[in-house]
Amino acid sequence: MTPKVPAGVCRIALITDFGPGPYVGQIRLVLDALVPGLPVLDLISDLAPFRPDLAAYLLPALVRDTPPGTLFLCVVDPGVGGERAALALEADGRWFVGPDNGLLGTVARRARDLRALRVGWRPVWTSQSFHGRDLFAPIAARICGGEDLQGQRLEGPSLAGWDWPDDLARVVYVDAYGNLLSGVRADRLDPQANLSVAGLSIPWARTFCEVPHGSAFWYENAFGLVEIAVNQGRADKVLGLGPGSALPLCLG
Amino acid sequence: MTPKVPAGVCRIALITDFGPGPYVGQIRLVLDALVPGLPVLDLISDLAPFRPDLAAYLLPALVRDTPPGTLFLCVVDPGVGGERAALALEADGRWFVGPDNGLLGTVARRARDLRALRVGWRPVWTSQSFHGRDLFAPIAARICGGEDLQGQRLEGPSLAGWDWPDDLARVVYVDAYGNLLSGVRADRLDPQANLSVAGLSIPWARTFCEVPHGSAFWYENAFGLVEIAVNQGRADKVLGLGPGSALPLCLG
Amino acid sequence: MTPKVPAGVCRIALITDFGPGPYVGQIRLVLDALVPGLPVLDLISDLAPFRPDLAAYLLPALVRDTPPGTLFLCVVDPGVGGERAALALEADGRWFVGPDNGLLGTVARRARDLRALRVGWRPVWTSQSFHGRDLFAPIAARICGGEDLQGQRLEGPSLAGWDWPDDLARVVYVDAYGNLLSGVRADRLDPQANLSVAGLSIPWARTFCEVPHGSAFWYENAFGLVEIAVNQGRADKVLGLGPGSALPLCLG
Repeated sequence: MTPKVPAGVCRIALITDFGPGPYVGQIRLVLDALVPGLPVLDLISDLAPFRPDLAAYLLPALVRDTPPGTLFLCVVDPGVGGERAALALEADGRWFVGPDNGLLGTVARRARDLRALRVGWRPVWTSQSFHGRDLFAPIAARICGGEDLQGQRLEGPSLAGWDWPDDLARVVYVDAYGNLLSGVRADRLDPQANLSVAGLSIPWARTFCEVPHGSAFWYENAFGLVEIAVNQGRADKVLGLGPGSALPLCLG
Repeated sequence: MTPKVPAGVCRIALITDFGPGPYVGQIRLVLDALVPGLPVLDLISDLAPFRPDLAAYLLPALVRDTPPGTLFLCVVDPGVGGERAALALEADGRWFVGPDNGLLGTVARRARDLRALRVGWRPVWTSQSFHGRDLFAPIAARICGGEDLQGQRLEGPSLAGWDWPDDLARVVYVDAYGNLLSGVRADRLDPQANLSVAGLSIPWARTFCEVPHGSAFWYENAFGLVEIAVNQGRADKVLGLGPGSALPLCLG
Repeated sequence: MTPKVPAGVCRIALITDFGPGPYVGQIRLVLDALVPGLPVLDLISDLAPFRPDLAAYLLPALVRDTPPGTLFLCVVDPGVGGERAALALEADGRWFVGPDNGLLGTVARRARDLRALRVGWRPVWTSQSFHGRDLFAPIAARICGGEDLQGQRLEGPSLAGWDWPDDLARVVYVDAYGNLLSGVRADRLDPQANLSVAGLSIPWARTFCEVPHGSAFWYENAFGLVEIAVNQGRADKVLGLGPGSALPLCLG
């Protein structure tokens, strides 16, 4: 028996480490042909390359306040061409498609209501190296059309990344301003606490305009994560940190 | 009494310093939910970070030749979370939404027909640090829907940036080729004049193909601005200039 | 007599060297006004600047597996403002618009079914330096609307780039991961062959997950090209190569 996939997708949002270049565009061409008229949005395309372990902790924050009816097509897939399965999740009314390499593990674990499928359906042809275009995008289109995924229902604990920590005390993403986004939800920290990072004591502030120019601070960002920033400066340069850098945070 | 906002928005164009990353995409998700079906275009997302003073002079040039019916959602907002107001402008048949920090001052001052509102309406919730997504995008959606902004009509001179110079003799933007876009309209300069910049004498040319490879020149760019370029080279590297650099231009 | 242009365009895909910045966005604004409702996708915007000679060999690979009904608006145009003609091609059921500077030469030469027009129609006004926005985008819109291009039919051999080599043994593009895409179709090489590049012997592999982390290999990429990559590393840094670098490949 193949579980039925719910309808109601209003739009597809792309979440990748593809960077600038043709890969996002090729996916959009495929989706425009398969689901004409459905809005397709590029939510983020500069995730840290090859690092599903970091993206796993940005992903639930990125989608936290997004409107209902969105399908998130997620690809950070260094093991493309290997044995990892293709997943389709429904998590608290949102859909996710991507590789079973941990990228979707944190979203799945935090969901109150989760349905996870290992997708059995395969297109007639896929390249060896671009499953975002050739496998995951067609799977997303099938979900939009309510078509059979030939799926095998999975229990949460069998998903890659299910046993990873609740929060990740590392830099998971550096944005274009040089702000350091951590994998730790801000409500896990005492808001009065100073952080000690790279030999500096970093105080909390509500937001940028409350600290002097050039000063480092941490705050709860608009996604709910602990973020370290420098007002009108680059925290990555000031602190010498980048994607994957450990942050010595005391989690409550 | 709240002034009525005109209808007739055909599309929204985004003008930000957000860079690559999730911020533009999150705004697009919000707009797709609030005004489904309305085209949303990313006009520019790599304005010089934190510099509304520079962007103010690129903005009127960027929108000069754009089709009617466009609402420009403009966010360069280093003071987010502080006291600056939210603005909605109608300027010569175009709409602008953004912070009252000078970003919209030059557009307003040059308009022949200007209506400016300080927007009083607020969403139920906004983050402290991402008003582009949480405040300005919902305001733009309300304009599209003809909904009340609870606006207070402002006179031009009360807008931030109204008293800034007519043109700005600085580099306001460096494009992907390394071309240096100034904040000076080309019709303010004598087209026969050589510019003296960074110790070099820089002649005028009509366009790229009229100067030798590797030569610096200035020309009126496709937006009407004085632009300094190097044919098939990078003017920013050759001249050692970047966003904010002063250009010793003699304005007529 | 002006040849009739076929209808049936479902979407426009943009292929440029414009990089981030306002140029792609300005084209999208123009197209949204001229052909409202037609999907416009950014396929690639970071082609090597000023290098139609390289892009000519990426282009047919990029479009190889794309859905029918797409018009490709292609602009790598260092000679803008000069004498090169504007082209409209129909090649094997795909449409291409761009400058006659070689950019479209390889696509044309490889087509089984080719119709090429030198476009005579001109808009009322064009800037000197931005024909992507002011000339090529309006031409694309006219094709979508089935309007007269005032075209002169050309024979293939009169197109720029028609006499360039069948494949180009150079790096034609470096993607965001640092992978080196060549201008050589993979079926031109012996798949058992090691490549000798930058003093290293580079073996073939099926895809990334089949070589150790940090190892260089070559493979047939998802576009059918010979690509040199390093598993979870940057081939451009490891090998010291970039756009235009010669690759000593023995073509069959």
